Amino acid sequence: MTVSRVLNRSPLVAPETADRVREVMEQVGFRLNQSARNLRQGRTTTMIGLVVDDIANPFYASLGREVEQVAERHDALLVVASCGSDLARERRVVTTLLDRGLDGLLMYPTAGDHGYLSEELLEKRPVVLLGRRPSGLDTDAVGVDNVGAAMRAVLHLFDHGHRRIGLVGYGRAESGDDPNADHRLGRIEGYRRGLASAGIGYDPDLVRLRCAGVNEAATAVRELLALPDPPTALFAMNNRMTVGALRVLGAGLGGVALVGFDDFELADVFDPPITVVAPDPGEMGRRAAEILFARLGGDERPIERTTLGAVLIARGSGELRPRSRP
Amino acid sequence: MTVSRVLNRSPLVAPETADRVREVMEQVGFRLNQSARNLRQGRTTTMIGLVVDDIANPFYASLGREVEQVAERHDALLVVASCGSDLARERRVVTTLLDRGLDGLLMYPTAGDHGYLSEELLEKRPVVLLGRRPSGLDTDAVGVDNVGAAMRAVLHLFDHGHRRIGLVGYGRAESGDDPNADHRLGRIEGYRRGLASAGIGYDPDLVRLRCAGVNEAATAVRELLALPDPPTALFAMNNRMTVGALRVLGAGLGGVALVGFDDFELADVFDPPITVVAPDPGEMGRRAAEILFARLGGDERPIERTTLGAVLIARGSGELRPRSRP
Repeated sequence: MTVSRVLNRSPLVAPETADRVREVMEQVGFRLNQSARNLRQGRTTTMIGLVVDDIANPFYASLGREVEQVAERHDALLVVASCGSDLARERRVVTTLLDRGLDGLLMYPTAGDHGYLSEELLEKRPVVLLGRRPSGLDTDAVGVDNVGAAMRAVLHLFDHGHRRIGLVGYGRAESGDDPNADHRLGRIEGYRRGLASAGIGYDPDLVRLRCAGVNEAATAVRELLALPDPPTALFAMNNRMTVGALRVLGAGLGGVALVGFDDFELADVFDPPITVVAPDPGEMGRRAAEILFARLGGDERPIERTTLGAVLIARGSGELRPRSRP
Repeated sequence: MTVSRVLNRSPLVAPETADRVREVMEQVGFRLNQSARNLRQGRTTTMIGLVVDDIANPFYASLGREVEQVAERHDALLVVASCGSDLARERRVVTTLLDRGLDGLLMYPTAGDHGYLSEELLEKRPVVLLGRRPSGLDTDAVGVDNVGAAMRAVLHLFDHGHRRIGLVGYGRAESGDDPNADHRLGRIEGYRRGLASAGIGYDPDLVRLRCAGVNEAATAVRELLALPDPPTALFAMNNRMTVGALRVLGAGLGGVALVGFDDFELADVFDPPITVVAPDPGEMGRRAAEILFARLGGDERPIERTTLGAVLIARGSGELRPRSRP
């Protein structure tokens, strides 16, 4: 009772007693938790987090904007943080956010074991995964049919006469992950299946898989174009790779056909405009946020796993036909 | 002492006493504050916040990425949130973040009175402002010479023969703010001064100031081009306006010269490539983050106010000469 009175600044407690109690609480790491207090008084603002690879990637920016709109409808606040495709950093980011009272988490997880997201850490707070479904974490997820989308891109180029189709891919060394759970491996798998389905052999010379960003993608495209028998078409595995390819190909694309994975602002303003296979980041964000808020509202349905399809947006760059050889 | 023992789960306290004490603490809104505890044990992760208008705007994305790199060097975590140019929402976002234990704040403030950021709310936590310097808040700030940059854009178009220079501007109704403190009004002022300096009269028909985003900017450009005596050049007041203009002008720009404020990815890949006046968002983010971490480290120098210049990057679109009239 004395403690309670001290905390509520009751005049019934002698000042020296109050000071003593506060001091003890400070020593052991307690302090007034304003959000817990707000909660009881119905004044709290729910805070949800979105953790992605790179906050500057426009795919995540579009996704984040939709999440934010759902959050606003629920009078909640969204904070975004990035983990740079690094599991140790992701763990630090997520743990810090949860320690600071995050109410729910949307995450584009890095590859690897996510066992650190223990029940003890989560304290029943909901997590919805985007994109990948890593090991060690059994929860709601909204994914993309990467295999199907990449396959579609390759077959689209085949239908326009291409037989030498280069792949410009991101990421580090291949991991042992389940290919169906990892968007990167899924896209590579889709590229292979597209070739197989078209009856084209897989030529490792046409495949560049280790590009960390725009600059590395540009280098890879330069290398591909310098081959004795260069590709007549390129499939760029995400929008960073597409931008890298555009930097090398330039306006007009030098006659090289191009299909990118993921749409990007201004894709339709190029000459020719850029053809993409694209999951809708807005839809992904919206679906995931809606699941998260349903969970926050007490929804206890079994785990929900949604896979979104991708559309092929034919704008011109993917419909260029191979140039005849000199 | 009993309280301390309860909190530290000491075996010297009878379970029923421990339960009683925990219950009282819960009732009054206390709970174990993990970050306070971490701090004492040297394990805390500093969390800083970046609050901007719109997390999906690539200008803020570039800025955020640099802030993140500075944060990483200090082993700190950055969270980003947006306030949609709405002061009430900004207040909620900032208050919530501070309640949740944010250690320092970088903010691109909306216009209006920021008196809500009281000493009581801040509890000595540092704030560094980006862009604007609103009333009611006397703190470190990193701004841009908007007037000078806009003036430079207009004079560049004048130097290339243009006399009818349209302005595509963002924002809501004009507020009563100090023009030097608000980037929007600063850019309008720079446009006016550029015209005056070139001896060109200000023609309100050529000025569109209320565009909320890309789509509204596109509409404004369509209206400008439909005028009986249309502009031969456009100055787009931020990268959203530039993108809107590009959607209407298309590849080749239809011979209309264009200078945008703020650079954007792919600006150099267009045909013609896009000329911009651009403060460096990365430099802004870096400078502001460095000031913030200096303050977090105990730096008590007087308030620091930095104004960054902008560069003009001539790439082609701003160097098109007016077409002769039919």
